[in-house]
Amino acid sequence: MIHPVDLIERKRNGEELPADELAEFVLAYARDEVPEYQMAAWCMAVYFKGLTPAETLALTDAMVRSGETVALGAAIGRKVVDKHSTGGVGDKTSIAVGPIVAACGVPLGKMSGRGLGHTGGTLDKLESIPGFRVELTTEEMIAQLRDVGVAIVGQSANLVPADKKLYALRDVTATVDIVPLIASSIMSKKLAAGGDAVVLDIKVGDGAWMKTLEDARVLAHEMLDLGLRAGMEVTCLLTDMDQPLGRAIGNALEIREAIDTVRGAGPDDFTELVLDASARLLAYSDLGIDVDEGRRRAETAVADGSAYATYERWIRAQGGDPDPHALPEAPVRLAVTAPRDGVVARLGALAVGVAVLELGAGRWTTTDTIDLAVGAVCFAKRGDTVLAGDDLAEVHARDEASAQVAVDAILAAYTIADAAPAARGIVLEVIS
Amino acid sequence: MIHPVDLIERKRNGEELPADELAEFVLAYARDEVPEYQMAAWCMAVYFKGLTPAETLALTDAMVRSGETVALGAAIGRKVVDKHSTGGVGDKTSIAVGPIVAACGVPLGKMSGRGLGHTGGTLDKLESIPGFRVELTTEEMIAQLRDVGVAIVGQSANLVPADKKLYALRDVTATVDIVPLIASSIMSKKLAAGGDAVVLDIKVGDGAWMKTLEDARVLAHEMLDLGLRAGMEVTCLLTDMDQPLGRAIGNALEIREAIDTVRGAGPDDFTELVLDASARLLAYSDLGIDVDEGRRRAETAVADGSAYATYERWIRAQGGDPDPHALPEAPVRLAVTAPRDGVVARLGALAVGVAVLELGAGRWTTTDTIDLAVGAVCFAKRGDTVLAGDDLAEVHARDEASAQVAVDAILAAYTIADAAPAARGIVLEVIS
Repeated sequence: MIHPVDLIERKRNGEELPADELAEFVLAYARDEVPEYQMAAWCMAVYFKGLTPAETLALTDAMVRSGETVALGAAIGRKVVDKHSTGGVGDKTSIAVGPIVAACGVPLGKMSGRGLGHTGGTLDKLESIPGFRVELTTEEMIAQLRDVGVAIVGQSANLVPADKKLYALRDVTATVDIVPLIASSIMSKKLAAGGDAVVLDIKVGDGAWMKTLEDARVLAHEMLDLGLRAGMEVTCLLTDMDQPLGRAIGNALEIREAIDTVRGAGPDDFTELVLDASARLLAYSDLGIDVDEGRRRAETAVADGSAYATYERWIRAQGGDPDPHALPEAPVRLAVTAPRDGVVARLGALAVGVAVLELGAGRWTTTDTIDLAVGAVCFAKRGDTVLAGDDLAEVHARDEASAQVAVDAILAAYTIADAAPAARGIVLEVIS
Repeated sequence: MIHPVDLIERKRNGEELPADELAEFVLAYARDEVPEYQMAAWCMAVYFKGLTPAETLALTDAMVRSGETVALGAAIGRKVVDKHSTGGVGDKTSIAVGPIVAACGVPLGKMSGRGLGHTGGTLDKLESIPGFRVELTTEEMIAQLRDVGVAIVGQSANLVPADKKLYALRDVTATVDIVPLIASSIMSKKLAAGGDAVVLDIKVGDGAWMKTLEDARVLAHEMLDLGLRAGMEVTCLLTDMDQPLGRAIGNALEIREAIDTVRGAGPDDFTELVLDASARLLAYSDLGIDVDEGRRRAETAVADGSAYATYERWIRAQGGDPDPHALPEAPVRLAVTAPRDGVVARLGALAVGVAVLELGAGRWTTTDTIDLAVGAVCFAKRGDTVLAGDDLAEVHARDEASAQVAVDAILAAYTIADAAPAARGIVLEVIS
């Protein structure tokens, strides 16, 4: 029998917890036998004292063991790939990557969580599609992978329930940005859901949990290590999150942009990331092709409409209406206009994320509801030339008052200078 | 409107929180508008990042404002004194001090919390007296102070509700031993309950939250400072908690020892502390006497039986049966015997406390129930000469198995050496 207060105190004091006690703590928490407040205190102690590699492994293993596991590849007799992101402002990558990869004949199965940060998570975004169901059973997910080639679902109560609980708790207790907890959360889901290979997009910068490339590299190596021990192929993309990804931030707005991108009309930075990730996933697949050939096939799927056709089939398979016009729209739109001529030197991702969160697109506590329609579209990005009075961005809001607050906040997030900043690609580093 | 997750994050990052936001956070928590898990995470952040004096003052002030306040002295037209301890193993001091001081004609009113540590708190100990009611209304408390001269009651829901909630939470999240939180918890109760002067017993050593005299001095000065700002007279006694106080550890066992002490038959160290605290409280009273005269009057009240008569009146006034034979007794008793001849060089307070906690005398979580009968009586204390086979202590347990575990643990807590350790008084330092 473990004593939670004792485990909290020992971690607080910097001790390494034995694997069996740590596992029992996590499993008891998953069974609701350890209260949320004790886990919250423990997580904050971990923020300050960290976890050793052995603790991270024990934690991850316990999370996997807290529920069922399913080997998706074995279930459908194909190599199944997966894509995950650590979360950033305007990140809808998986929603575009899934149908592109599937259109190329490679099954992509992804279990996703909710609400890390400023907008909802991938699930919240998908739920802005009328009728879309994220709570599929494992059998439904497998059948859909076989039939449609793509399935993005919520963690069912049966898969890594410990992580599902812990993720929601960390989100509201300022204990999200802790490298070993991020690594174990992500990898436990990947290991339990059982794709055979995964591309992990680690966001780096002002709007991400990892503020520096150094921190991102530490996280990448922790996740590669956890994957290695479980025989999973892992590639980490370290990508730029100093400004929002693409233009759209906000749940339904991001779905619209993902659709545009699948159809070949997306913003440059987002399109590049989607195609890069797709190419690497195709190279991991059982098609026997390399990354360059993967890239060509991904581009073709976008250009010939097969990616969008797959998107429509996928959304319908999960009960949703794929028509972009069916997405909810906010009643109030207000423009953010450039105060002067110049070049956008910076568009702070965090500031834009907070502004959109304040509009109601994200959640402060587990019980907050999300306004799926609100958000912002930032037309002008780093390096773009603007003239005084140009629309830099447009706020989509529930009412005039909140719109004005967001407009002011987003305007303040822009830095307009005389000279263009150094050019910078979206993918900063690849670690595998 | 405050965002709790934001306040947690700012404290975690080492920021000083503005007084108004901190106050609103605490008051919202008291209204159940901030969940326990967020407060737990905040407390753990405070463990690592501390509070500034301004934050401690704001916190204390918000706790007082979270409920009603009552000026006991004004209510009965007398100067009312109070006694408080930071808690240690075997600490039943207030239960003996109350009737002694009252027998000398000075009203002592005390509000007490529950379950800091290894046995219950003062309230739990008092509840081992059959029929004893700790939940008095303020009107009942005032009437009893006037009629009997002593009242020790639970914090009613109306008085410092924020502290009541926070105290219970800290107890089960390893966030008790944080100096500014201890200071604000104690002083908010003292300020809200409104005695005019208080003797604060700060335990120092292995079995206390303050491990060193240096830490205890820091706490003493924080509390003196908070008292000063509110016009309350405060004396801090720094007292030895390297070994258990007195002999008895466990709720009913400690009541029995408090009775013995009020009747002049208590253990030396405990008797000395009780008389010292009583003397200082009498010197603070409206009797117009000094500490030496207070000491003489306290000793007289014990010797002439008036202190015990007051004890009986007090217990009856709160509905209890003052007869020591009415106290619950544990079915199993097992002796701890000396393995060799020698002198007790050490009796580890923490080890004894944990052994008694494992017997069921304390609580690990807020929902644990306490076994009021179990505990231990340590006959041999530091400096006592023992012969092999002598009874060092006696365990009172619910069953044989738990008794044996406790016997082994308490035996291990004894260090028996050839030479006597340096003599040391119970009161180490007085700060006022």
